[in-house]
Amino acid sequence: MRITDREYDSRCEQLAEHLRGRGLTGAVLFDNSYVLYYTGFAFIPTERPAALVVNAAGDRGMFVPRLEREHAQANALVQHVADYPEYPSEHHPMEALARLLDQMGVRDSIGADQDGYPWIFGFRGPTLTELTGTAPERVAAFVEDQMAIKSDAEIALIRESAKWGNLAHVLLQRYTRSGATETEVSRRASTEATLAMLDAIGPLYRAQSMFFQNGAEAGYRGQIGRNAAIPHALANNIVFQEGDILVTGAGAPVWGYNSELERTMVIGQPSAQQRELFAHMVALQDTAFDAMKPGARCSDVDRAVRAYYDAHGLWDYWKHHVGHAIGIRYHEGPFLDVGDDTELAPGMVFTVEPGLYAAGVGGFRHSDTVVVTDEGIDFLTYYPRDLESLTLPV
Amino acid sequence: MRITDREYDSRCEQLAEHLRGRGLTGAVLFDNSYVLYYTGFAFIPTERPAALVVNAAGDRGMFVPRLEREHAQANALVQHVADYPEYPSEHHPMEALARLLDQMGVRDSIGADQDGYPWIFGFRGPTLTELTGTAPERVAAFVEDQMAIKSDAEIALIRESAKWGNLAHVLLQRYTRSGATETEVSRRASTEATLAMLDAIGPLYRAQSMFFQNGAEAGYRGQIGRNAAIPHALANNIVFQEGDILVTGAGAPVWGYNSELERTMVIGQPSAQQRELFAHMVALQDTAFDAMKPGARCSDVDRAVRAYYDAHGLWDYWKHHVGHAIGIRYHEGPFLDVGDDTELAPGMVFTVEPGLYAAGVGGFRHSDTVVVTDEGIDFLTYYPRDLESLTLPV
Repeated sequence: MRITDREYDSRCEQLAEHLRGRGLTGAVLFDNSYVLYYTGFAFIPTERPAALVVNAAGDRGMFVPRLEREHAQANALVQHVADYPEYPSEHHPMEALARLLDQMGVRDSIGADQDGYPWIFGFRGPTLTELTGTAPERVAAFVEDQMAIKSDAEIALIRESAKWGNLAHVLLQRYTRSGATETEVSRRASTEATLAMLDAIGPLYRAQSMFFQNGAEAGYRGQIGRNAAIPHALANNIVFQEGDILVTGAGAPVWGYNSELERTMVIGQPSAQQRELFAHMVALQDTAFDAMKPGARCSDVDRAVRAYYDAHGLWDYWKHHVGHAIGIRYHEGPFLDVGDDTELAPGMVFTVEPGLYAAGVGGFRHSDTVVVTDEGIDFLTYYPRDLESLTLPV
Repeated sequence: MRITDREYDSRCEQLAEHLRGRGLTGAVLFDNSYVLYYTGFAFIPTERPAALVVNAAGDRGMFVPRLEREHAQANALVQHVADYPEYPSEHHPMEALARLLDQMGVRDSIGADQDGYPWIFGFRGPTLTELTGTAPERVAAFVEDQMAIKSDAEIALIRESAKWGNLAHVLLQRYTRSGATETEVSRRASTEATLAMLDAIGPLYRAQSMFFQNGAEAGYRGQIGRNAAIPHALANNIVFQEGDILVTGAGAPVWGYNSELERTMVIGQPSAQQRELFAHMVALQDTAFDAMKPGARCSDVDRAVRAYYDAHGLWDYWKHHVGHAIGIRYHEGPFLDVGDDTELAPGMVFTVEPGLYAAGVGGFRHSDTVVVTDEGIDFLTYYPRDLESLTLPV
């Protein structure tokens, strides 16, 4: 089920070809999602710098702390491993990166995703420009564009992720009742879904995600009742009440890949206003689905949805664009946004999640994960979308 | 229990004073842990850029997406809120930041933690240099140094965090038995500890952490049996067996603050080699505790511990330095490392966690969170450290 070595090789070869085309001797990638994409090597970034180096011949080298040396050496796709004892240490770790670059013939014209390791978790260090004497050419846009087109194997992993997100969501809906708290419900649902996933897939399962390390998850992120009008509320321990509008979220990391499933639910019989906003929200999402086909632009999809906001006088309830790409990161580009003219192409995977947010009433948003095909889109998530299915007993 | 508005004001005033001293008109801070530190405003970074602006007069402005507008406006400590509709949008969001800077009189000489919003989650945009025509002066080192000295209120929050981490760890130890899986045990312990914490603290509880959003957590991160020799292994669904050496981790986010508790446990009667390595590990940690007093350097502490590795021929088992500061981030500087000559000062909070890693046997590491006092250190974590207490029945 995981990505084959052959596919990793092919990804690296595409990068190397880009480097040769740009006259670059190699590239340094610090972003751990890029490192995972090209090598399958998963790590959590800290103050200890790490990077993948790919040279113009397509050879790969990992720059890691001593702590990760064996982990890096175990990766058959990496030909060179340069480690340093520790950060900060008596000699700056970036000196080991300089030696690796030298060893791999990466000098003079260098690509990079960013100019040095970011100053996170207390790390302080030189930029690549300071280290090598040359400002790197940014290659992040190329990498992002490459990652945006998913292979069949990637789509299969995202589909697998959606399946376990679906289970977690079924359980979340089953256990959510007025009087229960979001924390007990979401933990119970997530734990049961995770244990089922682990037993079903078996010991070969790997999450390989820095975002969702705990397995399948479904929850509310505080989007309950009146709070649901704040799209990215941070989770609190809220008690469910009759009349609450709930916005959920569910997913599962599967060999580094993610899906997104979100649903709007209501506890008890919905009010007329809730019914109306719910119906508009579903229509907004349908409008987006209809607009998605290869050759259309991302901006066209957002524009079609905005036309619906216009036609129905819903702008007071608008807060964000239609959606974003998803894969190794739970947010990726391109974006279904008026400002993004990228053409939809087969293999692109998006969340589709236009929302309505009414102060004092709540938020209304479904999110589905879909893949662009030769004809239109396929759904990777498949949870019921209608109000009746999403109305909970008190 | 949370940080008072007065303390936030005082933190900002210290930053403003630094800016005035450097002849800067203001500073832009993109790092969300810095934003939380100066304003209590918690958010999870995505492709939608956000920043805190503090000008030389100490006024504060938040640059946020439309999505976070109400959240930012609800923060009484922020005088200016500039929002943009969406990323990427037809006008680049960074134009709104430029207007906020202008409005707050931040121009010509500007400080920043980094040169622009990082290219994460698909964000692409101009550097601050490109936006303002002036390269910013980096102020991250000042911010890091300021954050390193914890106030009494911060120490109280870290102590509170340690209490709930302790509960989660007690339950983790209680439920860990051969035949059980790490996932079922860690989820059960974490859920019960979290529900107890939420009920004990009550509805005012806020996690405000981007690292540990789910509450109190205790688990293994895959550090089980032979895997325990890989310090930062990612979690898998391993079944516990007699003879396994386990390295745990526990903590809880409390209004943005974190603690760290780690213990080495063994299932069944430890072997002679396990006993020996365990005893050395405890002695290494004691050596570090003894070396920690105000005025000593961070490097002195690591050197004292390294002398123990030397004296007992343990270098084959070394993988990392003694520890790191902790607070809003779970890793912060300064570091208890030979390369860090920062003087220990009252109010600094560190993890102390020298380890021994023996291939084929396992890893041995306790981590305690301690605060430097006028005389030496106080323990914020307080879990038993001796082998007998950490030996589990089969």
